[in-house]
Amino acid sequence: MSKKIVIVGGVAGGASVAARLRRLDEHADIIMFEKGPHVSFSNCALPYHLSGIVENSDKLILMSPDMFRKRYNIEARVGQEVTKINRNQKTVTVSELTSGKSYQESYDQLVLSPGAAPVRPNLPGVELPHVFTVRNVVDIDRIHKYIYTNELKDITVVGGGFIGVEVAENLQLAGYHVTLVEFSEQIMKSFDHDMAQILHKEMHDQGVKLVLGDGLAKINDSSIMTQSGKEISTQAVILAMGVSPETSLASEAGLALGQTGAIKVDHNYLTNDSNIYAVGDAIEVYHKLLHKPVRLSLAGPAQKQARAAADHIYGIPSRHQGVIGSSSLHLFDLNAASTGLNVRQVEAAGISYDYSYLIPPDKVGLMPNSAPMHFKLIFEKPTGRILGAQAIGKGNVDKRIDVIATMISMNGTLEDLKDLELSYSPMLGTAKDVVNHAALVSLNLLHGYYQEVKVSEVRSLVEKNAFIIDAREEGEFRSGHLINAINIPLSEFRTRLDEIPKTEPIYVHCRSGQRSYNMVMALLHLGYQDVYNIAGSYLGINLYEYFTDQHTGREPIVTKYNFK
Amino acid sequence: MSKKIVIVGGVAGGASVAARLRRLDEHADIIMFEKGPHVSFSNCALPYHLSGIVENSDKLILMSPDMFRKRYNIEARVGQEVTKINRNQKTVTVSELTSGKSYQESYDQLVLSPGAAPVRPNLPGVELPHVFTVRNVVDIDRIHKYIYTNELKDITVVGGGFIGVEVAENLQLAGYHVTLVEFSEQIMKSFDHDMAQILHKEMHDQGVKLVLGDGLAKINDSSIMTQSGKEISTQAVILAMGVSPETSLASEAGLALGQTGAIKVDHNYLTNDSNIYAVGDAIEVYHKLLHKPVRLSLAGPAQKQARAAADHIYGIPSRHQGVIGSSSLHLFDLNAASTGLNVRQVEAAGISYDYSYLIPPDKVGLMPNSAPMHFKLIFEKPTGRILGAQAIGKGNVDKRIDVIATMISMNGTLEDLKDLELSYSPMLGTAKDVVNHAALVSLNLLHGYYQEVKVSEVRSLVEKNAFIIDAREEGEFRSGHLINAINIPLSEFRTRLDEIPKTEPIYVHCRSGQRSYNMVMALLHLGYQDVYNIAGSYLGINLYEYFTDQHTGREPIVTKYNFK
Repeated sequence: MSKKIVIVGGVAGGASVAARLRRLDEHADIIMFEKGPHVSFSNCALPYHLSGIVENSDKLILMSPDMFRKRYNIEARVGQEVTKINRNQKTVTVSELTSGKSYQESYDQLVLSPGAAPVRPNLPGVELPHVFTVRNVVDIDRIHKYIYTNELKDITVVGGGFIGVEVAENLQLAGYHVTLVEFSEQIMKSFDHDMAQILHKEMHDQGVKLVLGDGLAKINDSSIMTQSGKEISTQAVILAMGVSPETSLASEAGLALGQTGAIKVDHNYLTNDSNIYAVGDAIEVYHKLLHKPVRLSLAGPAQKQARAAADHIYGIPSRHQGVIGSSSLHLFDLNAASTGLNVRQVEAAGISYDYSYLIPPDKVGLMPNSAPMHFKLIFEKPTGRILGAQAIGKGNVDKRIDVIATMISMNGTLEDLKDLELSYSPMLGTAKDVVNHAALVSLNLLHGYYQEVKVSEVRSLVEKNAFIIDAREEGEFRSGHLINAINIPLSEFRTRLDEIPKTEPIYVHCRSGQRSYNMVMALLHLGYQDVYNIAGSYLGINLYEYFTDQHTGREPIVTKYNFK
Repeated sequence: MSKKIVIVGGVAGGASVAARLRRLDEHADIIMFEKGPHVSFSNCALPYHLSGIVENSDKLILMSPDMFRKRYNIEARVGQEVTKINRNQKTVTVSELTSGKSYQESYDQLVLSPGAAPVRPNLPGVELPHVFTVRNVVDIDRIHKYIYTNELKDITVVGGGFIGVEVAENLQLAGYHVTLVEFSEQIMKSFDHDMAQILHKEMHDQGVKLVLGDGLAKINDSSIMTQSGKEISTQAVILAMGVSPETSLASEAGLALGQTGAIKVDHNYLTNDSNIYAVGDAIEVYHKLLHKPVRLSLAGPAQKQARAAADHIYGIPSRHQGVIGSSSLHLFDLNAASTGLNVRQVEAAGISYDYSYLIPPDKVGLMPNSAPMHFKLIFEKPTGRILGAQAIGKGNVDKRIDVIATMISMNGTLEDLKDLELSYSPMLGTAKDVVNHAALVSLNLLHGYYQEVKVSEVRSLVEKNAFIIDAREEGEFRSGHLINAINIPLSEFRTRLDEIPKTEPIYVHCRSGQRSYNMVMALLHLGYQDVYNIAGSYLGINLYEYFTDQHTGREPIVTKYNFK
């Protein structure tokens, strides 16, 4: 007798389960239900239709029900919603959305992949016709049609996560005046605030108006009101305020939900019913570093879950490694990527930590398009275990983050990272790769060879008139420097030691940290005890300060900004 | 008493030793001897001066002796050759090249970083004035001046390693007619022949004339003769036939050489004299996977050796991981990278192995510049231990190779690679990354879920009229297909099973391997026993065959080439 497997949800997770099942069993009956009109579309590419980077929204649809039938002998029933699971009978109740008719379908195994729905807050105006959310091709077609058929000028995006930021970017590229409203003080929560400042600057420079630390209060016909009372003119509003796992079908059937509110599954993606699996954005997953369940709406893990669940149905075990949370983002001229834990998460988990922040070139400086890469590496103290990393720059930041993700997966330490022998050629990298470099700086911090202050601490140092040495050459200093800094180039300092007091803390920076590191080490050997390198140096300070200066109108701590 | 450390060689390894020593000890006397006029130049960027990508050769020089003195208090003596090591006296004899005078310099510790010299074969004409080698800025300036002041049309490069290929590329970009002569049947020995064929095609398509399997016999005033008797018109010859470690200084001082002929060092980069270290291209290094010493002329390992040697002088131990040999190459519109062992090395080492070869897209297919990535993953049987990988494509191939390099360093297996949770966004990758995909295919091979034939075997299958199914749609088939292949699209095959014999082996391909994999699995479940997927599919076959067809004039096995 052939197995009969029913799948609820035909997008990333569900479609992957179905395709994998067919490869495992040519004879199984595989039925996939999707309440929307499309299966197997590219969720992650949806925002790119708004700018025309994906010109035709049909291209977002990777497989039609007809292709599923012909290529895989899989029945994909679209426009049909599974409304109930009848666990005792091992059937689901299905409602045909066009006809309104309903029927039962039996299963041997059931796989739930219902996904997560965009949050719609209960606020005045949220049901107005110019208010949208983004979940599927229908949504993006509706927005596209609305913004291209009406004469719009201003569009507001609410929410600074992946979807909000990518939608804002693509609308800005399409020529609209875009405002992004985010309740917290930063966009892109996978990054720490210091790194997010670089993304803030990029959005600002590209013309997106960022409203941070302020929430949506009310939507009017041609404006929104924020919680602080700001009125922002807008002819369309895109809500991207996070997603909520689709758990009602599961919970109504008595399937257990976990502590995060998402569907609880075991290491084989089985729910508390041994014939029902669940995968994708509707479930909670075990975090390898936090040792607890989390929600993680990412496509990569969903695919792995889908395969593991399908394999388990056929008795093939999968190792469950837990998730670490790796992601990337292309934002105008920048790439950004992160993996593992950020400082907020590490602090919340109570893990003892430190981090290095450096800005090396992404490839040999002589080569075309060489650009600074901002790299932050977070590690556990005292073990040197690698906890997370964040990278932003014009170049190949995702390469470095993927190496760190690999190290985290393999339980790597700073010693392991320092030793990594990575591929190199001048057009593609540097002989000492960014990640090797980060490991070396981190080991110096771990072993206490020298101390650092962080870019976020520099403003207060300037304000209290601390002794700050700018180790760059005089011409560089003149082109813009920290207020109150003293210019003692690395090339001169050994003859100017009398200018450096031994009685107070000394803070040293240069352009990107190379020269200041050398000066700090020399000063320590020369008997100076209270010496600090400023992590990120002048480049990092400028990028950290710039956006907030612009945003708040406060006085800059530099005589002139310099981002090169 | 401060230490006095003498360094022989002021390029990559030597300069790195010197800078590290200064950070460890502000009081040490550090003297660096370099017989050439420049220290600390970018060897790897030398070829890029020939095309003007690096316009000014001064920019190749990263640090002057003056900068070493001012910034690091390091004495860099250029134009001075260390001609003898007097181990009993702990001195070196130094010859000043301009004055011809010589003197002794004492040391507490001596670090040798003399590098490796280009091989100049003993052949007629090799000393003619239009014959060049490439080692340093002086060499590249000489070539640059020669080719830009004389009216050249044709230039021949001899040798298809990194330097030869990069020089050929840059000369071609500068508008010359370039012929590259390589004694073996392929360029870039870090790649296997199947992957090198893609590089051959790129060189061919970009106008470089490749002469493979033929050596240099003789250089005339305006031509060269190959060993097969071919005469090639040329007004300049660049020899890039490999390098030979500079061992004479060491061996004359009685320092031991190893089995490769390079300087033998222990795990701390100490020679058999406990006061003499050696690093860089002149030494042999321990290979992590081959468990024996090898020569490896790469900048990344040299930097790590330099740091480890400097640290050891100050009593700081370094873990010695052994080398794995990671490298990358930018070649016209392609990027190429490799790590670990290739099939030739694995076979020579007698390791039981298999490999997967796949051509997935490097990023989501809808996104601008999405392109196929050729990826080969070599693993040990039966353990699944990862031995090496090679990747070629227009996109981010070095990212994937660096992930594999990290896995090899961390002793990863295919199971580990399959599970890796890497960063993803549609502009930068795919939800199931290339490396995850390669691990899955490899595990299928390892576990015997299905069998493959390699692209190199397809020609003989076609010639013996094997039963080859082309699983693409009819329109794709018509635009070019294998001679003798039968078109049974995946979307039709379940209704056309009667056309597929059970009595002979069945070989299946599609465009890139996705559809053929599904058909192979279905056929196996349907009782077909002798079914093979053709690794690389139509795309791979075309790229494998094309260059040799052009090169030899043999009959193609496809009705029309197709590379997309």
